[in-house]
Amino acid sequence: MVNVAVLGYGTVGSGVVEVLNINKEIIKRNVGEEIKVKYVLDLREFEGDPVQEILVHDYDVILKDKDVKIIAEAMGGVEPAYTFTKNALLAGKSVCTSNKELVAKHGAELLEIAKKNNANYFFEASVGGGIPIIRPLNNCITADEVTGISGILNGTTNYILTEMSEKGAAFEEVLKDAQDKGYAERNPEADVEGHDACRKIAILTSLVTGSQVDFEDIYTEGITKITEKDFKYAKAMKASIKLLGISKKIDGKFYSLVAPFLVKHKNPLYSVRGVFNGILVHGNMVDDVMFYGRGAGKSPTASAVVSDVVDAAKNLGKHIPVEWNEKKYDLGKISELKSRFFVRMKDKGLDDDLMPAIIEAFGDVLCIRAEGVHDELAFITDEIREDEFKEHIAKFEDVYSVIRVDF
Amino acid sequence: MVNVAVLGYGTVGSGVVEVLNINKEIIKRNVGEEIKVKYVLDLREFEGDPVQEILVHDYDVILKDKDVKIIAEAMGGVEPAYTFTKNALLAGKSVCTSNKELVAKHGAELLEIAKKNNANYFFEASVGGGIPIIRPLNNCITADEVTGISGILNGTTNYILTEMSEKGAAFEEVLKDAQDKGYAERNPEADVEGHDACRKIAILTSLVTGSQVDFEDIYTEGITKITEKDFKYAKAMKASIKLLGISKKIDGKFYSLVAPFLVKHKNPLYSVRGVFNGILVHGNMVDDVMFYGRGAGKSPTASAVVSDVVDAAKNLGKHIPVEWNEKKYDLGKISELKSRFFVRMKDKGLDDDLMPAIIEAFGDVLCIRAEGVHDELAFITDEIREDEFKEHIAKFEDVYSVIRVDF
Repeated sequence: MVNVAVLGYGTVGSGVVEVLNINKEIIKRNVGEEIKVKYVLDLREFEGDPVQEILVHDYDVILKDKDVKIIAEAMGGVEPAYTFTKNALLAGKSVCTSNKELVAKHGAELLEIAKKNNANYFFEASVGGGIPIIRPLNNCITADEVTGISGILNGTTNYILTEMSEKGAAFEEVLKDAQDKGYAERNPEADVEGHDACRKIAILTSLVTGSQVDFEDIYTEGITKITEKDFKYAKAMKASIKLLGISKKIDGKFYSLVAPFLVKHKNPLYSVRGVFNGILVHGNMVDDVMFYGRGAGKSPTASAVVSDVVDAAKNLGKHIPVEWNEKKYDLGKISELKSRFFVRMKDKGLDDDLMPAIIEAFGDVLCIRAEGVHDELAFITDEIREDEFKEHIAKFEDVYSVIRVDF
Repeated sequence: MVNVAVLGYGTVGSGVVEVLNINKEIIKRNVGEEIKVKYVLDLREFEGDPVQEILVHDYDVILKDKDVKIIAEAMGGVEPAYTFTKNALLAGKSVCTSNKELVAKHGAELLEIAKKNNANYFFEASVGGGIPIIRPLNNCITADEVTGISGILNGTTNYILTEMSEKGAAFEEVLKDAQDKGYAERNPEADVEGHDACRKIAILTSLVTGSQVDFEDIYTEGITKITEKDFKYAKAMKASIKLLGISKKIDGKFYSLVAPFLVKHKNPLYSVRGVFNGILVHGNMVDDVMFYGRGAGKSPTASAVVSDVVDAAKNLGKHIPVEWNEKKYDLGKISELKSRFFVRMKDKGLDDDLMPAIIEAFGDVLCIRAEGVHDELAFITDEIREDEFKEHIAKFEDVYSVIRVDF
C-alpha cells in the first residue's frame, strides 16, 4: 500500500480523492499496489464529508509521517505551495501537482531538488488539464527535434471566442454567461488577459529547450479587445479567432508569444471548440501531432494528477530524469519575429483615401470585406517584422483592430 | 554506446536509420548514450548507399552478436518477423516494431517472452504511425477506466473519403489518384476493406482490456461501397463519412467493429482530414482525449519506432510491464450492438409507397433529402440492434446503401 496526502480540498483536490476512490481497482492494477489517501490538508472544515476523518490543518503532520510517500498538491498559487513542495521533496516524498503558477516559476529548481532526493516532481495537470502532454513531450516525442508548439491552452478564453464566433455575441455578454456557468472566474483577468496561457507555454517551452523559460519574458496579449466585427471578418475569410500560446524555433532560437490569431481550417486547432484545449507539437520527423481534450474541470484535471500519482508510486525512490535546468533560456526578441497582420481601420472615404499610405507602409495587402460592416478598411499584410509593423501602424489614426494571422 | 540492428531496409527501416542519423545528438541527450546502427538486415543489395557497409543478409549474425541490445523490426508481415522477434527476445534483446500484423497476432505472447527475458517489446508505430498512442494508453491514461476508443486508424481510406467528400469524386477515381500519389498500395485491399484498421483497433482493445482481442473476431466493413451519392446526403446533414475503428464498453463488455460511419462536427474525428489519423479515447474521469497526427509515412512512422528504441535503450535489462495477456477476450456479439442506421433505397413512387413498410419495420425514421438525388428514399433509423436491423432491412429490395450513424 502506498500512502498519499492531498494538499487542498478545493475543486482539483476533492477530484483527486474522488478519482482515487472511484477507480481504486484500476489504479491498484496499474500501480501493483493499493493507493490510500492518508491525509487531506485544508484550513477549512468539511462537516458531513467523509474527508473530515482524514483532514489535517497542520502540514507538519504530513511532512513528518514517513508512511506518506506521495503528495498531491492541488492548492494553486506560489505560496505556501512552494515551501510545502520543497520540504516534501527534501524529505524524499514525490509531489504531483496541477499548480501551473508554481511549476512555471520554480519547476526547474523543484526538479533539481527531486533529483537530489531520489523523488519525483510531476506536473501533468499543470498544462492542458486532463490531456496527456507533459509525459508525451518527455517520454514519447523523444526521437524528434521539436521545432514548434502552438496550443489552445486556456478553456475559458476558447469558450468565449467560440461563443462569440458561433453566436455573434459581444465579449462582455459571453464573459458574463461564462461566469454564470462557472467556466470563468469572477475575476477573469488571468484567463482573458492571457496570463494563464502564458504560464503554460512557458512550461512547455522550458521542457522543449531544457532550460528555464521565464513567463515574464513572453509577450502576452489577451482577448479583451476582440469584437463581434472581428468575427464578421473572420467569417468572411472562413477563419476563426483563437488565443494561441506559441513557441517556434527560428534559426536555432525559440520565440514565444501568447496572442489571438486568425486561424483557418487546415490548422487542426481551428476545430478545437468550447472549453476544450488542443496542443500541436511539431517535430522535424513526426511532423504535426496534436493532443486534444478537456483542459480544465474537476475530473479531467484530477485524472491527470492521479496519473502522476500512479507514476510516482511505480517509481518510489527512483528519480525519473526530466530535462529542465535552472539556466535561463534567452528567448528570441519578439520584435524580430515575422507575422502577417490583419488590420481594421476607419475608412475616410475617397476624399482622404488611405490605400496609398497603407501600400507605402505595408506593400501589397490583401483587402478583406465583411458582410454588414461599413466605413472600414480591412486588410492582411504580408509577413513583416513585429517592430516594423509597429512603427508603420503608428502612423495611422483610428485603427480598430490588429490580429495576427496564422495562414 | 548502444548498438541497434534494423530489420528491413524498406520505407520504415530506411526511415529509422535516417532518424537515428539526423537526430543523433537529440537522441543521445534523451538516452544518455549514443545509439549506433551496427547492422541492417535485408535480402537486397543497396549499391552506392552507405548502408551497404553495415548490411547483412543473415539474421544469425545479428542474433549472435551480444553487442546488439535492440532490434528495430520494420519488415512487416507475420513471418519471418515473428521468428526473428521471438529469437531476439529469447536472447534478451529488446525489439521495437511498426509491424501491426505481427503485434495484433502475437503481441501477448511476445510481451510474455520479453518479460521472462528482461527485455522489452515495444510497438508504438504499429498504431497511428507517428502519433503517440500506445505509450499514452499504457503510461498516461492510468487513472481512468477506459470505456471507449474510436479512431480514424488508416490514412489511405481517410484520404480517399476526404477527397470524395470535398471533391464529390467517385471511389475508383480517388483510389487511382491515391495510388498514383503513393498513398495507396497497388493492391489496396488491406486498406479499403478495413483489415488494416481492424488490426489496429484489435491492438488498442487488447491493451485496454489487458487480454488478447483476436482481430478475426472484429466485425469489419470497408469503404468500397461508399458512393458520391452517399456524400451528397452527408453534405445535406452537415456530416462526413469516416472509416472508424470502434471499441466501446457496454454493461462491462467491449464491443468492437470497423465500419464507415456518418460523423458530425461535434465529434473531433470529423475534422481529421486527408492522410491524418485521429484516435479518440474516452475515460470515465478524463472524458474525451484525442491524439492526432500522421498515421503513416516514412519519417513519422520511423520517429515512433525510434522513440521506442530510446525507451528500450533507457531500460536495458529491465522489462517495462504491459498489461496484455494471452487469455482470449470474448468481445460482445456485434448482433447485440445498437446503432442508428442511414439507409438509401429505391423510391417506387406513390403507387407502391414504401413508407408504411419502413415505419412498420423501423418505427419513426428521420427522412433525409439530398440536392440532385432523385427517385430514392433515404432515412435514419432510431437506435436498433444490429440483428434486428438486418432482419428488417432484408425485407426491402433495391437497398442502395446502409451506413451507421455516429450522432
